[in-house]
Amino acid sequence: MSLIVQKYGGTSVGNPERICNVARRILESQQAGNQIIAVVSAMSGVTDNLLKLANAVSPAPTERELDVLLSTGEQQTIALTAMAINALGGKAVSLTGAQAGIETDGVHTKARIANITPTEVHEMLDEGNIVILAGFQGKTSDGLITTLGRGGSDLTAIAMAAAVKADLCQIFTDVDGVYTCDPRVVKKAQKIETISYDEMLEMASSGSKVMQSRSVEFAKKFGVRFEVRNSMNTNPGTLVKEETPGMESVVVRGISIERNQAKITIDDVPDQPGVAALIFGAIAKANIVIDIIVQNVSYDGETDVSFTLSAADLPRAEAEVRKVLADIGPNTDVRSESGIAKLSIVGIGMRSHSGVAARMFAALSAAEVNIQMISTSEIKTAVTVSEADIEKAAQAVHTAFGLDAE
Amino acid sequence: MSLIVQKYGGTSVGNPERICNVARRILESQQAGNQIIAVVSAMSGVTDNLLKLANAVSPAPTERELDVLLSTGEQQTIALTAMAINALGGKAVSLTGAQAGIETDGVHTKARIANITPTEVHEMLDEGNIVILAGFQGKTSDGLITTLGRGGSDLTAIAMAAAVKADLCQIFTDVDGVYTCDPRVVKKAQKIETISYDEMLEMASSGSKVMQSRSVEFAKKFGVRFEVRNSMNTNPGTLVKEETPGMESVVVRGISIERNQAKITIDDVPDQPGVAALIFGAIAKANIVIDIIVQNVSYDGETDVSFTLSAADLPRAEAEVRKVLADIGPNTDVRSESGIAKLSIVGIGMRSHSGVAARMFAALSAAEVNIQMISTSEIKTAVTVSEADIEKAAQAVHTAFGLDAE
Repeated sequence: MSLIVQKYGGTSVGNPERICNVARRILESQQAGNQIIAVVSAMSGVTDNLLKLANAVSPAPTERELDVLLSTGEQQTIALTAMAINALGGKAVSLTGAQAGIETDGVHTKARIANITPTEVHEMLDEGNIVILAGFQGKTSDGLITTLGRGGSDLTAIAMAAAVKADLCQIFTDVDGVYTCDPRVVKKAQKIETISYDEMLEMASSGSKVMQSRSVEFAKKFGVRFEVRNSMNTNPGTLVKEETPGMESVVVRGISIERNQAKITIDDVPDQPGVAALIFGAIAKANIVIDIIVQNVSYDGETDVSFTLSAADLPRAEAEVRKVLADIGPNTDVRSESGIAKLSIVGIGMRSHSGVAARMFAALSAAEVNIQMISTSEIKTAVTVSEADIEKAAQAVHTAFGLDAE
Repeated sequence: MSLIVQKYGGTSVGNPERICNVARRILESQQAGNQIIAVVSAMSGVTDNLLKLANAVSPAPTERELDVLLSTGEQQTIALTAMAINALGGKAVSLTGAQAGIETDGVHTKARIANITPTEVHEMLDEGNIVILAGFQGKTSDGLITTLGRGGSDLTAIAMAAAVKADLCQIFTDVDGVYTCDPRVVKKAQKIETISYDEMLEMASSGSKVMQSRSVEFAKKFGVRFEVRNSMNTNPGTLVKEETPGMESVVVRGISIERNQAKITIDDVPDQPGVAALIFGAIAKANIVIDIIVQNVSYDGETDVSFTLSAADLPRAEAEVRKVLADIGPNTDVRSESGIAKLSIVGIGMRSHSGVAARMFAALSAAEVNIQMISTSEIKTAVTVSEADIEKAAQAVHTAFGLDAE
C-alpha cells in the first residue's frame, strides 16, 4: 500500500461537475490500494471574487483579515470534495490547513511553512479515510489563519508529502506535464518524462508557467519526487526528481519562451563603484523585477548598462532611472525598447558538454534571427530576440538540439 | 466603560456598502467609550448559495462537511467587517467561533454550545481592539467545526454576552423591535419598550418571527438582558429582560398572528388509553410539527380529536393519520381543513387578572369573528379563526386590550 499526496488546482475543481470528477479520480486512486491525501485549491474565480469584496470595503485590506477571508475559498472546496466522495460511497474527511497541523510564520498573505505536525492526518488515514486537505493555508503558533501566497497549494502538497514521507506526490493541472517547448509555438514539442529539480527551476524562472519556483525549491530541499500530470485524462505526466547520472546525456532538456519583455539601456555610464547600486537600487525600491543585466567592458572610463524586464513595468522603470540620471554621470542617457522576447535553453547536460551555446547561436543565425543580449548560467543559456522572431527562433533551436518529436 | 455585545444579521451585512455602514456603527459604539464584541452572520444569500453547491455534489451532503462549508459564510463577513472598520481608522480583529473559544457538542448542523472560554476575546479587547466574532459556529473539543443551526448567530451573541458578563447585548435586525402586533396588519400597533423572557418566548412560538425561541431561552437561563433594535436607524428598540413586579400591570403585552394553518379532525375515536399515542406518534415520526391539540369529553365512549399544523404539512399529515385509522377504531374517520389562522394574546398580567379570555371572546364576537378552537397557557390565550377573518380579529382584540397607539 502506497501513501500518495495528490493536488488539484482551481480549474480542476472549478464547478460541481468537475469536483465530482476529481472525487471519482481520488476514490479510484484509493481503491487501487493506496492511502490518499488530496490537496485542493479554491474553485477558480472564488479567490478573485473575495478580493473584489475586500477592495469594496477597504482601499488597503488588513493582511491578517485577507487571510481569514481568502482561506474560506479552499475551505469550501475541501467540504464539497469530501461530500462528493462520500456520495460516491467512499469515506472522506476534510481538514483545513490549521486542522492538519500546518504551522507557518506570521507573515500574512505570504507565510512560510515553519513546521508540519500531521498527527490528525495520520489518525484520519489510519481510520480508512481519504483526507481532503485545504491548500494554500496554515496557522501561526498563536492560532491565527495564514495563507501561503502564489502557488501555495502546490507547496502544501509537497510539504505535506515530505512531512508524511509519501511514496508519491502528484500535482494535477490542466496540461499533460512539462514540455520541451510550448506546444502552441513548437508543433513537435514533446512531453518530458523526467526532469531534475534544477532544470525544472530554470524552466519555471524562464517562463514555463507549470509551477512556481518556490514549490520546486521546497521539493528539492526535502527530496520530494513529484509528478506533474493532467486532471482531465490519464496520460502519464512528467516526473520531477533529484539529478541522476544518466540525465546528463541529454544536453538540452527543454526550451522556454518569455514574451512581452522590454529592455532599458543606459549609455555613457562612468565605470566607477556605486553606479550599478544607484541604478538598480532605484529599480528595486519601486518593486520592479528585472531579469537579464548586461554590462560591457568600458572604454574611455565609460560603459553601457542594459537590462530586461516585463514590458508592463517599462514606463515606471524608465521614470525611476531618469530620476537618478543626473547622479550617475554628466553625459549619461537612457533608451528603452519593447517588443522583445527571451528564449532559454535548459539542461544539466550543459555542464559536461561543450559548444552548446555555439550550437544555439548557429541555429539562430541559420534561421536569420538576430541575437540582442546573451546571458548564461551553469545549466541555462538565454538570449533575447525581437518578439517577431521568437517562434522561428524556438523552432530552429528545438530542431537543432534534437528535441523534435518523430 | 461598558462591555457591549452587538449582533448584526445577514441582511444588515448583505453587501459591501452595508458592511461599511455596520462598521461605522460599531466604531461609533466604541468611540462612545465602550468595549465592543460584534457578532455577524453570513451575508444574505451566501448560505443558500453554499447549500446549492452542496446539493450539486451530493444528494445527502455529509453533515460534518456541511459545517465546514457553511461556516465559511460567517468567516467571510468577519474578515470584511474587520477590514472595513480598520479602513475607517478603527482597530478591529476577527475571530472565528473556534478561535473565540466557543465549544459545542458534536451534533453537526445543529450543535449546542457546551462551554465558552473567552480568553482570546478578552486579550483582544484588552489590547484596545473591537472583536468581530463569527456567529452560528463553534468547534468540538476535538477541533471539528460545528454550526449551531437556525438562529445560531443570535445564540452566539447571547452566549458570548453571558460568558464575558457583558453590560448589554444588542440584537440588530431589520425591524425597530417587538411590536404589540404585526404593523402591516394592525396600523395602530406600537413598539413594546420592555418585555419579559416568558412573554417573548410565547410571542416567538406564536408567530412573531423576530427571534428564535432557543436564543430567548438561553438568555432567560443565564439572565442575559438584550435589546432588539434596527440596524438601519437609531431608534431605541425593545428590551427583553427578567420579569419585574410592575410588568404584571399590563394584561396583554402583545398579539401574535400565524397564518397558513390547517386543522385535522379525527372523528369517533374510542376513548381509551394508547389512542393519542398512536395518532401523534405517527405524526411525530414523519417530523411534522403540530400546534394546538383539542380533545372533547367523550360521550358513548367515543370522542373527537382535532389538531392544527402548518398548511404545508397537511397532505403528508393526513396521509400518516389514514395509515393508522384502522388501528384506532372501527368507525373512526378523518377530516381536514385549511384556510385557518391563529391569533394569540400574550402577557404575564393574565396570571393575576381574571376575565382576560372572556374579554377576548367578547371582542371577537362583536367583530362577528367565529372562534374555531381555543387553547390556553398560563400567559397566553390562542384561538383559531378563518384566515379571512384574521385581520379583523387582530384589530378588534388589539383595541379591546388598549394596545392601540394614540
